Amino acid sequence: MQINISKAQQFIAADALEALAPQVKAAQEALEQGTCQGNDFLGWLHLPSSITPEFIDEINATAKVLQENCEAVVVAGIGGSYLGARMVIDALSNSFSWLQPSNMPRILFAGNNIGEDYLTELIGYLKTVKFGVINISKSGTTTETAITFRLLKKMCEDQRGKEEAKKVIVAVTDAKKGAARTTADKEGYKSFIIPDNVGGRFSVLTPVGLLPIAVAGYDIASLVKGAQDMEAQCDVNAPADQNPAAVYAAVRNAIYQTGKKIEIICNYQPKLHNLGEWWKQLYGESEGKDGKGIFPAAVDLTTDLHSMGQWIQDGERTIFETVVSVENPNTCLEVPSDEENLDGLNFLAGKRIDQVNKMAELGTQLAHVDGGVPNIKISIEKLDEYNIGQLIYFFEKACGISGLILGVNPFNQPGVEAYKKNMFALLNKPGYEAESAAIQAKLG
Amino acid sequence: MQINISKAQQFIAADALEALAPQVKAAQEALEQGTCQGNDFLGWLHLPSSITPEFIDEINATAKVLQENCEAVVVAGIGGSYLGARMVIDALSNSFSWLQPSNMPRILFAGNNIGEDYLTELIGYLKTVKFGVINISKSGTTTETAITFRLLKKMCEDQRGKEEAKKVIVAVTDAKKGAARTTADKEGYKSFIIPDNVGGRFSVLTPVGLLPIAVAGYDIASLVKGAQDMEAQCDVNAPADQNPAAVYAAVRNAIYQTGKKIEIICNYQPKLHNLGEWWKQLYGESEGKDGKGIFPAAVDLTTDLHSMGQWIQDGERTIFETVVSVENPNTCLEVPSDEENLDGLNFLAGKRIDQVNKMAELGTQLAHVDGGVPNIKISIEKLDEYNIGQLIYFFEKACGISGLILGVNPFNQPGVEAYKKNMFALLNKPGYEAESAAIQAKLG
Repeated sequence: MQINISKAQQFIAADALEALAPQVKAAQEALEQGTCQGNDFLGWLHLPSSITPEFIDEINATAKVLQENCEAVVVAGIGGSYLGARMVIDALSNSFSWLQPSNMPRILFAGNNIGEDYLTELIGYLKTVKFGVINISKSGTTTETAITFRLLKKMCEDQRGKEEAKKVIVAVTDAKKGAARTTADKEGYKSFIIPDNVGGRFSVLTPVGLLPIAVAGYDIASLVKGAQDMEAQCDVNAPADQNPAAVYAAVRNAIYQTGKKIEIICNYQPKLHNLGEWWKQLYGESEGKDGKGIFPAAVDLTTDLHSMGQWIQDGERTIFETVVSVENPNTCLEVPSDEENLDGLNFLAGKRIDQVNKMAELGTQLAHVDGGVPNIKISIEKLDEYNIGQLIYFFEKACGISGLILGVNPFNQPGVEAYKKNMFALLNKPGYEAESAAIQAKLG
Repeated sequence: MQINISKAQQFIAADALEALAPQVKAAQEALEQGTCQGNDFLGWLHLPSSITPEFIDEINATAKVLQENCEAVVVAGIGGSYLGARMVIDALSNSFSWLQPSNMPRILFAGNNIGEDYLTELIGYLKTVKFGVINISKSGTTTETAITFRLLKKMCEDQRGKEEAKKVIVAVTDAKKGAARTTADKEGYKSFIIPDNVGGRFSVLTPVGLLPIAVAGYDIASLVKGAQDMEAQCDVNAPADQNPAAVYAAVRNAIYQTGKKIEIICNYQPKLHNLGEWWKQLYGESEGKDGKGIFPAAVDLTTDLHSMGQWIQDGERTIFETVVSVENPNTCLEVPSDEENLDGLNFLAGKRIDQVNKMAELGTQLAHVDGGVPNIKISIEKLDEYNIGQLIYFFEKACGISGLILGVNPFNQPGVEAYKKNMFALLNKPGYEAESAAIQAKLG
């Protein structure tokens, strides 16, 4: 993985990064020493290097049980409990895998919305296949996930019988407490632990992400190896300019300080769409608090050059871009020659599609920079487990540093409670009697 | 369709809308009289009422040919040439349709990126099915779409033979000029016209959107009827407060003028995800110019309350929300009771899933408004062709009015050329010799 900030530096003061260097260093040391805000949620920091081959074997063994017994596996989880797995699986999967036969179970994501049609249709589909469930919830009472799991547990038991269902329902939850833990222990489900000190958005390298990724058939050992190597590269003692996480954290704060309020993550590979969704939670939830924080947005390119491209080129000059570029495709396809050349494309004949894509990427970078949009470029060699593992840890480490530079607690999410509290009050949840009365009075 | 701005008005001056009223009126009249900027692109304004039953029959007849001869139909197009069709098809389709047998062709979207793996994998899939192509391009030389069409045309001809291929390749293009028109005429493809005075992002009710939607098996007559009824409701002579497009255009400009720079479109139905993508092009490309314009963003709720929710609740107070709410689901599912109630959900037992969703929606609105986020609510009765037709015209009309209030030409997109010009120069396209030399000199 490489980071290139040469097209961002012209938009910040010459000494801006130097001026931030002490804060970057202090943030890294505070993370390392556990002296920063949110220091009860630093389990992600040395998570990759703590993962043993035996632990990976245990996850793979459970994945094998699901693979052998299920045509579909539903991952029930919301936010950090599905965004990481979805990102990795999509990045590695055939773009049209849904339409083709597979010897691996289909991985479906549910428990992340309260759509009546969505759940009805999910159930309709699951009636036609042998399915399993990975229930991912620290508490087991997150509304979206709990409703879904209640429906699917019953359905799975009806379909296979209670004994057989136990084989294909796996819990990823708290070590000791909560409804999902109680249920898992009572029913005898295989279970994995969400560590207390790893927040949802930093949990993709725990069983939260690793188990679904393994079930989908991908090599989690390589994924973890990539993260481990990046953990070493981003070590607190590495020189700041050779630590990509420190570089990214510093430059995005420097740009933000100039009044650029929106960061747009861009990819040129459709399979990276969900990297943007994962990244939005990671950065938005870590930094969007206390009335501050860069607003995270995402585009797929060149696709969205014909959608958001106009705004990016000519709208308010309050944005900057971070491009995740993949150096080499995994396949090989050339633009064919055509005798008649009615479309005028013969000047591209014999070129690989990716060569055209790379020139679109470079042309876009030049156009956007000329248009006043700072550009940060992150490159990975190819789309595989190892490189994605690197990317994951890089973005996590940079996020921790960046949030501390910004002066927020990057590891809490107090604002997420506000809607839940209102929803429970409106639904007359036991224990919310006072809130119910208050909200009904407010609504009149 | 209803619009409710009561939760937005507290964030703007009491007389803000009244003050904008003359501009709203002037914008509507300028659209009607064709005296505004961009007046050569006003074909969308009375498009719905101009669509005849015979024209719909013609589209349906072509759709039938594709349905009868194809297991998959690739829609090759970028930006406005696919976002509208994708929005409508996704809103109406079973959430898990990909995994289930269908008597309608699979609708695939391509020609909207330059991903080598994407195209390789598309071709790999298409080798296994009988497919057709709808090639949607005004010029026929848009790089992304033209490369894809060159590949698919050859493949389709190889698969079926040239004569049979002609039956299942349809062109939606310019009436007279351009590569796609020339090819269609030469090959004898069935073709439909993209009117000169309808820009891509306003084209979903032309064959650009209608043909793919019809091929997917949906009722385009109802879609058009919804749009026609909304066209009448948004008439220039309707009282402004009963014209939802005028209301929306005014209130979002009033909010923008208070310094809220980002509008987030929200849904509570996963099927509306691509409404957000269509809307982002419509508004971003229409208004993001001359250094101004609201930045359009989208979230899926409650899903993204566990992702962007923290930022929305507590980040910079520079955002507002527009919620598209669906009053009634199309299916029926209740939260089941559970004897043990380990998850504590029995307080919801017997409630429909959608009742929970609606309380999440109300609870979120209250939480976000309390957090300083103005809220505009747009409601439709249900997800069907008629209601989506209403929504389409509503957003288009409001966009035209809104852009004129902002003082930009809402109907051009000059910024989209910048990357193309660089890309062609970098790829040494014939005719770009001077630009090639210049860009190479710049790159050193």
